[in-house]
Amino acid sequence: MAAIIPLKAHHKNTSQPTGEDTLENLSNLLVEDMTAVNRLILHRMESPVALIPQLARHIIAAGGKRLRPLLTLACARLCGYEGERHHALAASVEFIHTATLLHDDVVDASYMRRGGPSANAAFGNEASVLVGDFLLSRAFQLMVEDGSLDVLRILSNASAVIAQGEVMQLSTNNDSSTNEQTYLDVIRAKTAELFAGACQIGNVVAGRPLAEEEALRAFGLNLGMAFQIVDDVLDYTAEQTNLGKMVGDDFREGKMTLPVILAIHRGNEAERAFWQRVLSGPKNQRDGDLAHALELMRRHNALNDAVDRARHYGAIARDALGTFPEHPLKASLLNVVDFTMERKF
Amino acid sequence: MAAIIPLKAHHKNTSQPTGEDTLENLSNLLVEDMTAVNRLILHRMESPVALIPQLARHIIAAGGKRLRPLLTLACARLCGYEGERHHALAASVEFIHTATLLHDDVVDASYMRRGGPSANAAFGNEASVLVGDFLLSRAFQLMVEDGSLDVLRILSNASAVIAQGEVMQLSTNNDSSTNEQTYLDVIRAKTAELFAGACQIGNVVAGRPLAEEEALRAFGLNLGMAFQIVDDVLDYTAEQTNLGKMVGDDFREGKMTLPVILAIHRGNEAERAFWQRVLSGPKNQRDGDLAHALELMRRHNALNDAVDRARHYGAIARDALGTFPEHPLKASLLNVVDFTMERKF
Repeated sequence: MAAIIPLKAHHKNTSQPTGEDTLENLSNLLVEDMTAVNRLILHRMESPVALIPQLARHIIAAGGKRLRPLLTLACARLCGYEGERHHALAASVEFIHTATLLHDDVVDASYMRRGGPSANAAFGNEASVLVGDFLLSRAFQLMVEDGSLDVLRILSNASAVIAQGEVMQLSTNNDSSTNEQTYLDVIRAKTAELFAGACQIGNVVAGRPLAEEEALRAFGLNLGMAFQIVDDVLDYTAEQTNLGKMVGDDFREGKMTLPVILAIHRGNEAERAFWQRVLSGPKNQRDGDLAHALELMRRHNALNDAVDRARHYGAIARDALGTFPEHPLKASLLNVVDFTMERKF
Repeated sequence: MAAIIPLKAHHKNTSQPTGEDTLENLSNLLVEDMTAVNRLILHRMESPVALIPQLARHIIAAGGKRLRPLLTLACARLCGYEGERHHALAASVEFIHTATLLHDDVVDASYMRRGGPSANAAFGNEASVLVGDFLLSRAFQLMVEDGSLDVLRILSNASAVIAQGEVMQLSTNNDSSTNEQTYLDVIRAKTAELFAGACQIGNVVAGRPLAEEEALRAFGLNLGMAFQIVDDVLDYTAEQTNLGKMVGDDFREGKMTLPVILAIHRGNEAERAFWQRVLSGPKNQRDGDLAHALELMRRHNALNDAVDRARHYGAIARDALGTFPEHPLKASLLNVVDFTMERKF
């Protein structure tokens, strides 16, 4: 008889604070702000065209970390802002992010997101493309209502750079010769720029000096780099239930993420031939390929070293906050950096 | 021996001014402005990510009427504007329009556009979605650089409304019970609002009174309604070479456009059963269905009456310009209304 495998202790019950607790801590410090933002998000995704709020609710209400709007709220308050303008701008950031998720899932033909069917799986690619367009436009409407051209400049730039990053990534898919620098350029554009923008605009509403805006931009940019690298590691290492999507999705799509790139560059000729075959497309993949890929990554320490690379960006993010005075939100933002590295989801 | 069918006289050689000549006339009046706009369009679709300008060039350089940026230029000059701000804003309007074309072709799975393969046929759906996102973001960057919150408000609203219109249209596809009012709501949102915005912002840069902005908005809105209705008629009546896409595309996709809606509402029960079958999807269509559909439309005068409906909006557009003093551009804009009704492409 097989031994009964003990259920893993739920990670919330361990004594170490976990990533999830850390984000909860930040949310708790900003609970009123975040309630207002959530209300705005729900209110402003309304439309007389019923399919729009249905689909938007599907992806937005499914949860997600709300990390980007939290960054806007935290940075604004950290800069001493006492008004409410940042609520609409935080909602705008989340709308931009949601629009890119909707389009990403169409582009990647992904059918799971946040533990359930993705919007394109539930509502079709057509609706996902169009509701993404709607949310992006709605984000700009929110910014225009706020009226800050600085915010509009920061987030319209971020939005254009995100699209460039996604196209760049598309060109690297299935191309096993992609190198680490190209990968870093892609994730900076597709992920880190919006983290940077989310932080920057917190400073803009507070009307603080440019040096602080640049510090917050550096914080967000490097946090975003770390976040995306860990995201790409989790695609190989996460437990299915935590990840909320299919483990190995990136592998099947031939995405050139850091763990793969490191394994390829450290592998021998036979290994590179393996990578070239399996990354060229799902039709060239066989049973056991994912397991073998994981074994190669472990052999070359690619997963751990990818997290090490993430720690480098995390360290830069931490130092970027150095010149800010002590503040519960500062401490919480520093914890978010740790969360980013330690998270399991 | 079969009689030799004479080649149709090229329509430019007929004595009546044609639609194409009319648009050329407007372009000629604005030749320096339009040259500047075309230069800006080419310059601002550049990106270090080579696929972006490649794909953008494919659709933008393939031609198109440039009607929307022409409206911005014409309205600005008609309002006495003498600067150059409207160049970037006209480019912005064309970018918004191009982004919607790219996404439309993905959503409709259309493989021809402007006489050649559509961008999604040539570059794939993924790239078309992402480059559409890029162009929409770039449009907002151009507006932010210009710095007018009024322009940003007008065009971010238009952009959100367009997306709503596209989603609304998606819900009506394959639904033969769609009525004319719903159709009018769809085309107002997906087409007429951008025509309206393109005209309005010409007035905004000129800094003219609100009454003029509203007149130009009414002109653009109604011109856009007429334009889209005729577009939908041409999908059934145009000659292949003029249309630049496949005749009957809308029919195959089960699009509920005005000629179809009129034929259905005027048909008997057997005819409605026919429409329900053929519009429910291409898999339910048989050889001869398109020919039979055309015969039903002719029997019920649906195509001519659809153009009559377009003339109604054209008439409102003409009257909207009534309070503007005589001006070569005013005359040319009135001719554009006629072009819209008489065009064969």
